[in-house]
Amino acid sequence: MERVAIIGASMTKFGQREEWIQELLAEAGLDCLEDAGVDAEAIEHLYVSNMASGEFEGQTGVMNGLAHDIGALPAYTQRIDQTSSSGGAGIYAAWQSVASGASEMTLLVGGEKMTHRTTGEATDVIASLTHPVEYKTGVTLPSFAGMTARHYLERFDAPRESLAKVASKNHKNGVDNPHAQFQKEVDVDTVLESPIVADPLRLYDFCPITDGSAALMLCPESVAEEYTDEYVVISGIDGATDTHVVHEREDPTVMGGVVESGEGAYEMSGRGPEDIDVAELHDMFTILEFLQMEGLGFAEQGEAWKLVEDGSTERDGELPINTSGGLKSKGHPLGASGVAQGVEIYEQLTGEADDRQVDAEVGLCCNVGGFGNCVITTIMEAAQ
Amino acid sequence: MERVAIIGASMTKFGQREEWIQELLAEAGLDCLEDAGVDAEAIEHLYVSNMASGEFEGQTGVMNGLAHDIGALPAYTQRIDQTSSSGGAGIYAAWQSVASGASEMTLLVGGEKMTHRTTGEATDVIASLTHPVEYKTGVTLPSFAGMTARHYLERFDAPRESLAKVASKNHKNGVDNPHAQFQKEVDVDTVLESPIVADPLRLYDFCPITDGSAALMLCPESVAEEYTDEYVVISGIDGATDTHVVHEREDPTVMGGVVESGEGAYEMSGRGPEDIDVAELHDMFTILEFLQMEGLGFAEQGEAWKLVEDGSTERDGELPINTSGGLKSKGHPLGASGVAQGVEIYEQLTGEADDRQVDAEVGLCCNVGGFGNCVITTIMEAAQ
Repeated sequence: MERVAIIGASMTKFGQREEWIQELLAEAGLDCLEDAGVDAEAIEHLYVSNMASGEFEGQTGVMNGLAHDIGALPAYTQRIDQTSSSGGAGIYAAWQSVASGASEMTLLVGGEKMTHRTTGEATDVIASLTHPVEYKTGVTLPSFAGMTARHYLERFDAPRESLAKVASKNHKNGVDNPHAQFQKEVDVDTVLESPIVADPLRLYDFCPITDGSAALMLCPESVAEEYTDEYVVISGIDGATDTHVVHEREDPTVMGGVVESGEGAYEMSGRGPEDIDVAELHDMFTILEFLQMEGLGFAEQGEAWKLVEDGSTERDGELPINTSGGLKSKGHPLGASGVAQGVEIYEQLTGEADDRQVDAEVGLCCNVGGFGNCVITTIMEAAQ
Repeated sequence: MERVAIIGASMTKFGQREEWIQELLAEAGLDCLEDAGVDAEAIEHLYVSNMASGEFEGQTGVMNGLAHDIGALPAYTQRIDQTSSSGGAGIYAAWQSVASGASEMTLLVGGEKMTHRTTGEATDVIASLTHPVEYKTGVTLPSFAGMTARHYLERFDAPRESLAKVASKNHKNGVDNPHAQFQKEVDVDTVLESPIVADPLRLYDFCPITDGSAALMLCPESVAEEYTDEYVVISGIDGATDTHVVHEREDPTVMGGVVESGEGAYEMSGRGPEDIDVAELHDMFTILEFLQMEGLGFAEQGEAWKLVEDGSTERDGELPINTSGGLKSKGHPLGASGVAQGVEIYEQLTGEADDRQVDAEVGLCCNVGGFGNCVITTIMEAAQ
């Protein structure tokens, strides 16, 4: 079967935006068409990753609106929701559309518009993605993160500062990302002195609420070669669920969906953790970066914090993680985040990452839905 | 490429149900596992077609909840929304998952829970799937239907009764469908004397608001043969958009999405309209059955009504349409409807349609999103 290539990528400025969801989707979509050098009429499938435009803005059918706005008719359209990993699910759906032969040119646009709602309203929608036996008793995603962090620190004798260093590292990377919500450094003391949200985690251990959109253009490799010789291939991709009731998991520090989707993506690509040169992980909460590093085999269980402490995951380290700034600094517009991870890896592998550029031939994205309720891992490689 | 087979099908009773969305999805999902003779652990991908569980019930992440409820972990999950054609989009997504090699066993479950909301609340959500330039001025789906019906009747000199006969035929078919919301006959006079909704259309020209769920099990044909020799293959499938602003269309009686998706599905299958033995069309409004019959080539433009008048589309006619009862009598739980169309064609092609059984080797489903804003056409054939 022919490999699936990515020939274009774009993202809007993430942050507090005045535009509504349709405008944000169109902005990234049009930019991606331009970046890929593809005419809108060439799009055969158009996928929109978006969790909750209906809940946030009272507008549904946004994929059909996008086809209209960018002139892509009669492209087939579909909206894809996998909660906070909708973007990764979108990459998987777009990959399937090309790999199955259904489409020779698929545009994926992920986006969310959230900041016009209060934090309470936004978190109410997000809480509803978990099982009611938990969220209706107040056990929401931030409290899972707090309990997991406490357990991790005590069990593995990890210093509290190591979590703060994740936030600080990602903020430092975000300074050089013109699309990041926060282009400012945050030092470890600032994290440690910020208000408590879910003990031991504090405000700066959490990603913000964000508006924004990101896009990728996928096609068969033979079609890619007609457009460019600077493209990326998806060599491995897989997704997997873990228990929907989070407290049913045997080990709170093991995210089964990360492990399973990572193994699937490694197997498909013929790669292993040692081959990954750069990774975008889903740092919705700082503790999640540790759990994904361990689930994906970048570190043994209970030891990811050491790689953060010794600088291995910094931009000039052995395995740079979240060179984009991560969700922490770049922001987390739900449906856009997984797509934006792909945009960063695409730019790193094609040498378009400007001041964030690292030396990389193989990259990985891990997009986490809920508290690992469903996870998608994607491995991308620079075209040979 | 290996063909994609359907080896199991199920649907819940459609109507006013007391269960919430997760229970409805699990009911159809478990029934489909049993019908297919497949263990839950064998499911690799699990797709949920659902437009608006968040808006209707304040619950999101229902695909992850379903994986939990039926014991399908660690299957990859995804929710698919294409408004009122979410079910057809789900068939397309599930087809892609198998055709791409990503999954060897995909369970698709479509469902919606709506009747606990008032008609006004439900129609507010549905209205939001069209373009705000139209619905915010009060031009919603029923009014499009009314205007289109008036135009069609006058332009093609069709009798008002021919629309009523669509409703009456589909209700007659629904009497023999134990899962239909309304298992009762409705005669032409009753339709013509029912309250006006959008002139010339009256209450019985419209489908109801419905709760329910339906499911299909898809796998490669070689895997299907391990389970059964009574299966169906998807020989053609395609989807296409039309203008998102409905009033921009050149001819209000031509649904471009129907024409384009139909042509794509015919081309892929090597079939034409003359090969279709039975069809499920999206009769959300009676006028839509005419427009799809014409868009799919079953009748010339302006002449579909004649085939209804002369009985050709009745169960014992030349081309039986909506043997299930259609959306009109069976009901229209948004995300379930397109899947339920597939369930009916599967049952017709495998000889499991009981009192509704017709003689058929090739069947077609046409699932319409919005007012033709996006349409999916699927052609299925009995395994040879």
